[in-house]
Amino acid sequence: MTGKQKKEARKRILDSAISLFARKVYAAVGVREIAQEAEVNISMISYYFGGKAGILKTIINEFHNQYYRVITDAIDDSKPPEECLRLIISRIISFVRINTEITMVAFNTLPLDIPGITDIQAGRVIEMLEGINSLCRRFDMDPNDPFPISIIGPAMLSTILSHFRLKPVQKNIFGFEFDHAFYERYARTIETLFLYGITGIAAQSKKAKGDKNETDC
Amino acid sequence: MTGKQKKEARKRILDSAISLFARKVYAAVGVREIAQEAEVNISMISYYFGGKAGILKTIINEFHNQYYRVITDAIDDSKPPEECLRLIISRIISFVRINTEITMVAFNTLPLDIPGITDIQAGRVIEMLEGINSLCRRFDMDPNDPFPISIIGPAMLSTILSHFRLKPVQKNIFGFEFDHAFYERYARTIETLFLYGITGIAAQSKKAKGDKNETDC
Repeated sequence: MTGKQKKEARKRILDSAISLFARKVYAAVGVREIAQEAEVNISMISYYFGGKAGILKTIINEFHNQYYRVITDAIDDSKPPEECLRLIISRIISFVRINTEITMVAFNTLPLDIPGITDIQAGRVIEMLEGINSLCRRFDMDPNDPFPISIIGPAMLSTILSHFRLKPVQKNIFGFEFDHAFYERYARTIETLFLYGITGIAAQSKKAKGDKNETDC
Repeated sequence: MTGKQKKEARKRILDSAISLFARKVYAAVGVREIAQEAEVNISMISYYFGGKAGILKTIINEFHNQYYRVITDAIDDSKPPEECLRLIISRIISFVRINTEITMVAFNTLPLDIPGITDIQAGRVIEMLEGINSLCRRFDMDPNDPFPISIIGPAMLSTILSHFRLKPVQKNIFGFEFDHAFYERYARTIETLFLYGITGIAAQSKKAKGDKNETDC
Protein backbone atom coordinates (compact mmCIF):
# COMPACT_ATOMS: atom_id res chain seq x y z
CA MET A 1 0.00 0.00 0.00
CA THR A 2 1.40 3.42 -0.95
CA GLY A 3 1.50 6.38 1.41
CA LYS A 4 -1.27 8.06 -0.51
CA GLN A 5 -3.61 5.11 -0.25
CA LYS A 6 -2.87 4.82 3.46
CA LYS A 7 -3.78 8.45 3.97
CA GLU A 8 -6.93 8.02 2.00
CA ALA A 9 -8.08 5.02 4.06
CA ARG A 10 -7.42 6.90 7.31
CA LYS A 11 -9.26 9.96 6.01
CA ARG A 12 -12.15 7.81 4.75
CA ILE A 13 -12.50 6.21 8.19
CA LEU A 14 -12.54 9.62 9.89
CA ASP A 15 -15.07 11.10 7.46
CA SER A 16 -17.38 8.07 7.73
CA ALA A 17 -17.17 8.10 11.52
CA ILE A 18 -17.94 11.84 11.70
CA SER A 19 -20.97 11.37 9.49
CA LEU A 20 -22.22 8.30 11.40
CA PHE A 21 -21.62 9.80 14.87
CA ALA A 22 -23.44 12.98 13.77
CA ARG A 23 -26.45 11.18 12.26
CA LYS A 24 -26.76 8.57 15.02
CA VAL A 25 -24.91 8.88 18.29
CA TYR A 26 -21.48 7.68 19.29
CA ALA A 27 -22.82 4.79 21.39
CA ALA A 28 -25.08 3.49 18.60
CA VAL A 29 -22.32 3.21 15.98
CA GLY A 30 -20.09 0.13 15.72
CA VAL A 31 -16.63 -0.19 14.17
CA ARG A 32 -18.02 -2.67 11.63
CA GLU A 33 -20.48 -0.01 10.42
CA ILE A 34 -17.70 2.59 10.15
CA ALA A 35 -15.51 0.15 8.20
CA GLN A 36 -18.40 -0.62 5.83
CA GLU A 37 -19.20 3.05 5.24
CA ALA A 38 -15.50 3.85 4.72
CA GLU A 39 -15.05 0.82 2.45
CA VAL A 40 -12.02 -0.37 4.39
CA ASN A 41 -11.19 -3.63 6.08
CA ILE A 42 -12.17 -3.50 9.75
CA SER A 43 -8.52 -4.16 10.74
CA MET A 44 -7.63 -0.73 9.34
CA ILE A 45 -9.54 0.87 12.22
CA SER A 46 -7.35 -0.88 14.81
CA TYR A 47 -4.28 -0.09 12.72
CA TYR A 48 -4.90 3.66 12.52
CA PHE A 49 -6.93 4.42 15.63
CA GLY A 50 -6.78 1.43 17.99
CA GLY A 51 -10.59 1.31 18.05
CA LYS A 52 -13.77 3.41 18.14
CA ALA A 53 -12.65 5.60 21.08
CA GLY A 54 -9.41 6.33 19.20
CA ILE A 55 -11.40 7.61 16.22
CA LEU A 56 -13.47 9.87 18.48
CA LYS A 57 -10.29 11.15 20.17
CA THR A 58 -8.85 12.10 16.77
CA ILE A 59 -12.13 13.75 15.71
CA ILE A 60 -12.33 15.79 18.93
CA ASN A 61 -8.71 16.92 18.70
CA GLU A 62 -9.19 17.79 15.04
CA PHE A 63 -12.31 19.82 15.87
CA HIS A 64 -10.66 21.70 18.73
CA ASN A 65 -7.49 22.43 16.74
CA GLN A 66 -9.63 24.12 14.12
CA TYR A 67 -12.18 25.74 16.45
CA TYR A 68 -9.44 27.14 18.68
CA ARG A 69 -7.83 28.81 15.68
CA VAL A 70 -11.21 30.21 14.60
CA ILE A 71 -11.54 31.93 17.96
CA THR A 72 -7.97 32.98 18.70
CA ASP A 73 -7.28 34.27 15.17
CA ALA A 74 -10.14 36.72 15.65
CA ILE A 75 -8.80 38.04 18.95
CA ASP A 76 -6.55 40.99 18.27
CA ASP A 77 -5.86 43.33 21.17
CA SER A 78 -5.10 46.18 18.80
CA LYS A 79 -8.71 46.13 17.59
CA PRO A 80 -11.77 47.26 19.61
CA PRO A 81 -13.38 44.32 21.48
CA GLU A 82 -16.69 44.90 19.64
CA GLU A 83 -14.93 44.32 16.35
CA CYS A 84 -13.23 41.17 17.69
CA LEU A 85 -16.54 39.79 18.95
CA ARG A 86 -18.26 40.38 15.60
CA LEU A 87 -15.34 38.70 13.88
CA ILE A 88 -15.45 35.69 16.24
CA ILE A 89 -19.18 35.22 15.62
CA SER A 90 -18.94 35.51 11.86
CA ARG A 91 -15.99 33.12 11.85
CA ILE A 92 -17.82 30.58 14.03
CA ILE A 93 -20.79 30.74 11.64
CA SER A 94 -18.58 30.15 8.59
CA PHE A 95 -16.80 27.34 10.40
CA VAL A 96 -19.99 25.55 11.53
CA ARG A 97 -21.53 26.05 8.08
CA ILE A 98 -18.63 24.14 6.51
CA ASN A 99 -18.04 21.73 9.42
CA THR A 100 -21.57 21.06 10.71
CA GLU A 101 -21.13 17.34 11.33
CA ILE A 102 -17.79 17.43 13.17
CA THR A 103 -19.10 20.30 15.32
CA MET A 104 -22.21 18.29 16.21
CA VAL A 105 -20.07 15.28 17.15
CA ALA A 106 -17.71 17.33 19.33
CA PHE A 107 -20.60 19.19 21.00
CA ASN A 108 -22.86 16.16 21.48
CA THR A 109 -20.12 13.98 22.96
CA LEU A 110 -19.08 16.66 25.47
CA PRO A 111 -21.44 15.48 28.23
CA LEU A 112 -20.61 11.79 27.75
CA ASP A 113 -18.37 10.11 30.24
CA ILE A 114 -16.18 8.12 27.84
CA PRO A 115 -12.91 6.91 29.41
CA GLY A 116 -9.89 8.64 27.88
CA ILE A 117 -12.11 11.18 26.10
CA THR A 118 -13.49 13.26 28.95
CA ASP A 119 -10.05 14.54 30.01
CA ILE A 120 -9.13 15.55 26.47
CA GLN A 121 -12.44 17.37 26.01
CA ALA A 122 -12.07 19.21 29.31
CA GLY A 123 -8.50 20.29 28.50
CA ARG A 124 -9.47 21.53 25.07
CA VAL A 125 -12.56 23.35 26.36
CA ILE A 126 -10.46 25.17 28.98
CA GLU A 127 -8.02 26.24 26.25
CA MET A 128 -10.89 27.57 24.16
CA LEU A 129 -12.55 29.32 27.10
CA GLU A 130 -9.30 31.16 27.80
CA GLY A 131 -9.66 32.75 24.38
CA ILE A 132 -13.27 33.78 25.10
CA ASN A 133 -12.24 34.95 28.58
CA SER A 134 -9.50 37.23 27.27
CA LEU A 135 -12.12 38.90 25.08
CA CYS A 136 -14.71 39.15 27.90
CA ARG A 137 -12.15 40.90 30.09
CA ARG A 138 -12.00 43.64 27.48
CA PHE A 139 -15.76 44.11 27.96
CA ASP A 140 -14.91 44.94 31.59
CA MET A 141 -15.97 41.61 33.02
CA ASP A 142 -14.36 40.44 36.23
CA PRO A 143 -11.50 38.14 35.05
CA ASN A 144 -11.75 36.10 38.27
CA ASP A 145 -15.41 35.30 37.78
CA PRO A 146 -15.74 32.12 35.66
CA PHE A 147 -19.52 32.42 35.58
CA PRO A 148 -20.14 34.64 32.52
CA ILE A 149 -17.66 32.83 30.27
CA SER A 150 -19.11 29.47 31.31
CA ILE A 151 -22.34 30.74 29.75
CA ILE A 152 -21.18 32.90 26.83
CA GLY A 153 -18.95 30.32 25.09
CA PRO A 154 -21.53 27.49 25.01
CA ALA A 155 -24.35 29.97 24.21
CA MET A 156 -22.56 31.19 21.09
CA LEU A 157 -21.78 27.74 19.75
CA SER A 158 -25.13 26.15 20.63
CA THR A 159 -27.13 29.06 19.19
CA ILE A 160 -25.26 28.83 15.90
CA LEU A 161 -25.38 25.04 15.86
CA SER A 162 -29.16 25.14 16.51
CA HIS A 163 -29.62 27.05 13.27
CA PHE A 164 -27.89 24.29 11.32
CA ARG A 165 -29.86 21.62 13.16
CA LEU A 166 -33.16 23.38 12.44
CA LYS A 167 -32.48 24.37 8.84
CA PRO A 168 -34.96 21.84 7.35
CA VAL A 169 -37.72 22.97 9.75
CA GLN A 170 -37.02 26.64 9.08
CA LYS A 171 -37.12 26.03 5.35
CA ASN A 172 -40.55 24.42 5.73
CA ILE A 173 -41.95 27.05 8.09
CA PHE A 174 -40.48 30.29 6.80
CA GLY A 175 -39.57 29.34 3.23
CA PHE A 176 -36.07 30.76 3.71
CA GLU A 177 -33.47 30.26 1.02
CA PHE A 178 -30.17 29.65 2.74
CA ASP A 179 -28.13 31.70 0.31
CA HIS A 180 -25.33 34.20 0.70
CA ALA A 181 -27.75 37.03 1.55
CA PHE A 182 -29.37 34.91 4.26
CA TYR A 183 -26.02 34.16 5.92
CA GLU A 184 -24.92 37.78 5.71
CA ARG A 185 -28.03 38.83 7.61
CA TYR A 186 -27.83 35.82 9.92
CA ALA A 187 -24.24 36.71 10.90
CA ARG A 188 -25.13 40.39 11.55
CA THR A 189 -28.09 39.34 13.74
CA ILE A 190 -26.18 36.82 15.86
CA GLU A 191 -23.31 39.29 16.21
CA THR A 192 -25.73 41.93 17.48
CA LEU A 193 -27.44 39.48 19.85
CA PHE A 194 -24.15 38.65 21.54
CA LEU A 195 -22.56 42.08 21.32
CA TYR A 196 -25.48 43.70 23.12
CA GLY A 197 -25.96 40.65 25.35
CA ILE A 198 -22.34 40.56 26.53
CA THR A 199 -22.35 44.32 27.10
CA GLY A 200 -25.43 43.85 29.29
CA ILE A 201 -23.88 40.96 31.23
CA ALA A 202 -20.68 42.98 31.80
CA ALA A 203 -22.72 45.93 33.11
CA GLN A 204 -24.69 43.60 35.37
CA SER A 205 -21.58 41.90 36.77
CA LYS A 206 -19.92 45.30 37.34
CA LYS A 207 -23.00 46.49 39.20
CA ALA A 208 -23.10 43.30 41.32
CA LYS A 209 -19.42 43.78 42.17
CA GLY A 210 -20.02 47.42 43.07
CA ASP A 211 -22.96 46.47 45.28
CA LYS A 212 -20.84 43.81 46.95
CA ASN A 213 -17.95 46.22 47.57
CA GLU A 214 -20.38 48.70 49.07
CA THR A 215 -21.70 46.06 51.46
CA ASP A 216 -18.13 45.08 52.34
CA CYS A 217 -17.25 48.64 53.36
CA MET B 1 -56.71 -4.67 34.31
CA THR B 2 -58.03 -1.66 36.21
CA GLY B 3 -58.03 1.88 34.80
CA LYS B 4 -55.24 2.82 37.15
CA GLN B 5 -52.98 -0.01 36.00
CA LYS B 6 -53.70 0.87 32.38
CA LYS B 7 -52.70 4.45 33.00
CA GLU B 8 -49.57 3.36 34.73
CA ALA B 9 -48.46 1.10 31.85
CA ARG B 10 -49.05 3.91 29.34
CA LYS B 11 -47.16 6.36 31.53
CA ARG B 12 -44.32 3.88 32.05
CA ILE B 13 -43.99 3.42 28.28
CA LEU B 14 -43.84 7.18 27.74
CA ASP B 15 -41.30 7.77 30.50
CA SER B 16 -39.06 4.94 29.31
CA ALA B 17 -39.24 6.14 25.69
CA ILE B 18 -38.38 9.73 26.70
CA SER B 19 -35.38 8.53 28.65
CA LEU B 20 -34.19 6.18 25.88
CA PHE B 21 -34.74 8.69 23.05
CA ALA B 22 -32.85 11.31 25.09
CA ARG B 23 -29.89 9.07 25.94
CA LYS B 24 -29.63 7.44 22.51
CA VAL B 25 -31.45 8.80 19.50
CA TYR B 26 -34.91 8.05 18.17
CA ALA B 27 -33.63 5.92 15.27
CA ALA B 28 -31.42 3.76 17.51
CA VAL B 29 -34.19 2.75 19.93
CA GLY B 30 -36.50 -0.20 19.22
CA VAL B 31 -39.98 -0.90 20.60
CA ARG B 32 -38.65 -4.06 22.25
CA GLU B 33 -36.13 -2.00 24.21
CA ILE B 34 -38.85 0.46 25.27
CA ALA B 35 -41.12 -2.40 26.39
CA GLN B 36 -38.26 -3.95 28.38
CA GLU B 37 -37.37 -0.68 30.10
CA ALA B 38 -41.05 0.02 30.85
CA GLU B 39 -41.60 -3.54 32.06
CA VAL B 40 -44.64 -4.01 29.85
CA ASN B 41 -45.55 -6.56 27.23
CA ILE B 42 -44.54 -5.31 23.78
CA SER B 43 -48.19 -5.53 22.63
CA MET B 44 -49.02 -2.69 25.04
CA ILE B 45 -47.06 -0.32 22.80
CA SER B 46 -49.26 -1.14 19.79
CA TYR B 47 -52.32 -0.95 22.03
CA TYR B 48 -51.62 2.52 23.39
CA PHE B 49 -49.55 4.17 20.66
CA GLY B 50 -49.77 2.06 17.49
CA GLY B 51 -45.94 1.89 17.40
CA LYS B 52 -42.73 3.83 17.97
CA ALA B 53 -43.78 6.85 15.85
CA GLY B 54 -47.00 7.04 17.88
CA ILE B 55 -45.01 7.28 21.11
CA LEU B 56 -42.87 10.08 19.66
CA LYS B 57 -46.01 11.89 18.47
CA THR B 58 -47.43 11.77 21.99
CA ILE B 59 -44.13 12.93 23.50
CA ILE B 60 -43.86 15.85 21.08
CA ASN B 61 -47.44 16.95 21.66
CA GLU B 62 -46.97 16.65 25.41
CA PHE B 63 -43.79 18.75 25.24
CA HIS B 64 -45.37 21.47 23.12
CA ASN B 65 -48.53 21.62 25.24
CA GLN B 66 -46.37 22.35 28.25
CA TYR B 67 -43.77 24.55 26.52
CA TYR B 68 -46.46 26.64 24.84
CA ARG B 69 -48.04 27.35 28.23
CA VAL B 70 -44.64 28.26 29.69
CA ILE B 71 -44.25 30.93 27.01
CA THR B 72 -47.78 32.23 26.64
CA ASP B 73 -48.47 32.40 30.39
CA ALA B 74 -45.52 34.80 30.70
CA ILE B 75 -46.82 37.11 27.97
CA ASP B 76 -49.01 39.77 29.55
CA ASP B 77 -49.63 42.90 27.51
CA SER B 78 -50.32 44.90 30.66
CA LYS B 79 -46.71 44.38 31.78
CA PRO B 80 -43.61 46.00 30.20
CA PRO B 81 -42.08 43.75 27.51
CA GLU B 82 -38.76 43.65 29.43
CA GLU B 83 -40.56 42.11 32.39
CA CYS B 84 -42.32 39.58 30.13
CA LEU B 85 -39.04 38.58 28.50
CA ARG B 86 -37.32 38.07 31.86
CA LEU B 87 -40.31 35.99 32.97
CA ILE B 88 -40.25 33.86 29.80
CA ILE B 89 -36.54 33.13 30.24
CA SER B 90 -36.78 32.24 33.91
CA ARG B 91 -39.81 30.06 33.19
CA ILE B 92 -38.02 28.25 30.32
CA ILE B 93 -35.06 27.60 32.63
CA SER B 94 -37.31 26.15 35.36
CA PHE B 95 -39.13 24.08 32.77
CA VAL B 96 -35.99 22.65 31.13
CA ARG B 97 -34.46 22.02 34.56
CA ILE B 98 -37.41 19.79 35.47
CA ASN B 99 -38.04 18.42 31.96
CA THR B 100 -34.53 18.09 30.52
CA GLU B 101 -35.04 14.76 28.76
CA ILE B 102 -38.39 15.49 27.05
CA THR B 103 -36.99 18.86 25.89
CA MET B 104 -33.93 17.15 24.42
CA VAL B 105 -36.14 14.63 22.60
CA ALA B 106 -38.44 17.32 21.17
CA PHE B 107 -35.50 19.52 20.15
CA ASN B 108 -33.31 16.75 18.73
CA THR B 109 -36.09 15.18 16.66
CA LEU B 110 -37.06 18.55 15.11
CA PRO B 111 -34.72 18.21 12.12
CA LEU B 112 -35.62 14.58 11.43
CA ASP B 113 -37.88 13.81 8.55
CA ILE B 114 -40.14 11.22 10.21
CA PRO B 115 -43.43 10.64 8.33
CA GLY B 116 -46.41 11.90 10.35
CA ILE B 117 -44.15 13.72 12.82
CA THR B 118 -42.69 16.54 10.74
CA ASP B 119 -46.11 18.17 10.15
CA ILE B 120 -47.02 18.06 13.82
CA GLN B 121 -43.66 19.55 14.83
CA ALA B 122 -43.97 22.34 12.26
CA GLY B 123 -47.52 23.21 13.38
CA ARG B 124 -46.54 23.29 17.05
CA VAL B 125 -43.41 25.34 16.37
CA ILE B 126 -45.46 27.94 14.44
CA GLU B 127 -47.88 28.17 17.36
CA MET B 128 -44.98 28.72 19.77
CA LEU B 129 -43.26 31.25 17.51
CA GLU B 130 -46.46 33.29 17.42
CA GLY B 131 -46.07 33.74 21.16
CA ILE B 132 -42.45 34.86 20.78
CA ASN B 133 -43.43 37.07 17.85
CA SER B 134 -46.12 38.89 19.82
CA LEU B 135 -43.46 39.73 22.40
CA CYS B 136 -40.85 40.78 19.81
CA ARG B 137 -43.37 43.20 18.28
CA ARG B 138 -43.43 44.99 21.61
CA PHE B 139 -39.67 45.49 21.27
CA ASP B 140 -40.48 47.42 18.09
CA MET B 141 -39.52 44.67 15.69
CA ASP B 142 -41.13 44.58 12.29
CA PRO B 143 -44.07 42.11 12.69
CA ASN B 144 -43.85 41.14 9.02
CA ASP B 145 -40.21 40.12 9.22
CA PRO B 146 -39.96 36.45 10.25
CA PHE B 147 -36.18 36.61 10.41
CA PRO B 148 -35.53 37.75 14.00
CA ILE B 149 -38.07 35.40 15.58
CA SER B 150 -36.69 32.50 13.54
CA ILE B 151 -33.44 33.14 15.41
CA ILE B 152 -34.55 34.31 18.85
CA GLY B 153 -36.85 31.40 19.73
CA PRO B 154 -34.34 28.61 18.93
CA ALA B 155 -31.47 30.65 20.43
CA MET B 156 -33.24 30.90 23.80
CA LEU B 157 -34.12 27.22 23.99
CA SER B 158 -30.80 25.91 22.64
CA THR B 159 -28.73 28.16 24.91
CA ILE B 160 -30.61 26.97 27.99
CA LEU B 161 -30.58 23.36 26.83
CA SER B 162 -26.82 23.56 26.23
CA HIS B 163 -26.32 24.38 29.91
CA PHE B 164 -28.12 21.20 30.93
CA ARG B 165 -26.21 19.17 28.35
CA LEU B 166 -22.88 20.54 29.54
CA LYS B 167 -23.53 20.39 33.29
CA PRO B 168 -21.14 17.46 33.91
CA VAL B 169 -18.33 19.20 31.96
CA GLN B 170 -18.95 22.51 33.74
CA LYS B 171 -18.87 20.79 37.09
CA ASN B 172 -15.47 19.29 36.22
CA ILE B 173 -14.01 22.47 34.77
CA PHE B 174 -15.40 25.21 37.00
CA GLY B 175 -16.34 23.23 40.10
CA PHE B 176 -19.81 24.81 40.12
CA GLU B 177 -22.42 23.58 42.54
CA PHE B 178 -25.73 23.61 40.71
CA ASP B 179 -27.72 24.85 43.67
CA HIS B 180 -30.47 27.40 44.09
CA ALA B 181 -27.98 30.30 44.17
CA PHE B 182 -26.41 29.09 40.92
CA TYR B 183 -29.77 28.96 39.11
CA GLU B 184 -30.78 32.38 40.42
CA ARG B 185 -27.63 33.86 38.95
CA TYR B 186 -27.89 31.74 35.81
CA ALA B 187 -31.44 32.96 35.16
CA ARG B 188 -30.49 36.65 35.67
CA THR B 189 -27.53 36.25 33.27
CA ILE B 190 -29.50 34.55 30.48
CA GLU B 191 -32.31 37.09 30.93
CA THR B 192 -29.80 39.92 30.53
CA LEU B 193 -28.15 38.29 27.52
CA PHE B 194 -31.45 38.10 25.66
CA LEU B 195 -32.96 41.33 26.93
CA TYR B 196 -29.98 43.35 25.70
CA GLY B 197 -29.56 41.12 22.65
CA ILE B 198 -33.19 41.51 21.50
CA THR B 199 -33.09 45.25 22.13
CA GLY B 200 -30.01 45.40 19.89
CA ILE B 201 -31.62 43.29 17.16
CA ALA B 202 -34.76 45.47 17.25
CA ALA B 203 -32.64 48.63 16.90
CA GLN B 204 -30.72 47.06 14.02
CA SER B 205 -33.88 45.96 12.19
CA LYS B 206 -35.43 49.41 12.68
CA LYS B 207 -32.32 51.04 11.28
CA ALA B 208 -32.28 48.66 8.28
CA LYS B 209 -35.94 49.48 7.61
CA GLY B 210 -35.23 53.21 7.87
CA ASP B 211 -32.30 52.90 5.48
CA LYS B 212 -34.47 50.93 3.07
CA ASN B 213 -37.30 53.48 3.21
CA GLU B 214 -34.81 56.24 2.51
CA THR B 215 -33.57 54.39 -0.56
CA ASP B 216 -37.16 53.78 -1.68
CA CYS B 217 -37.97 57.51 -1.62
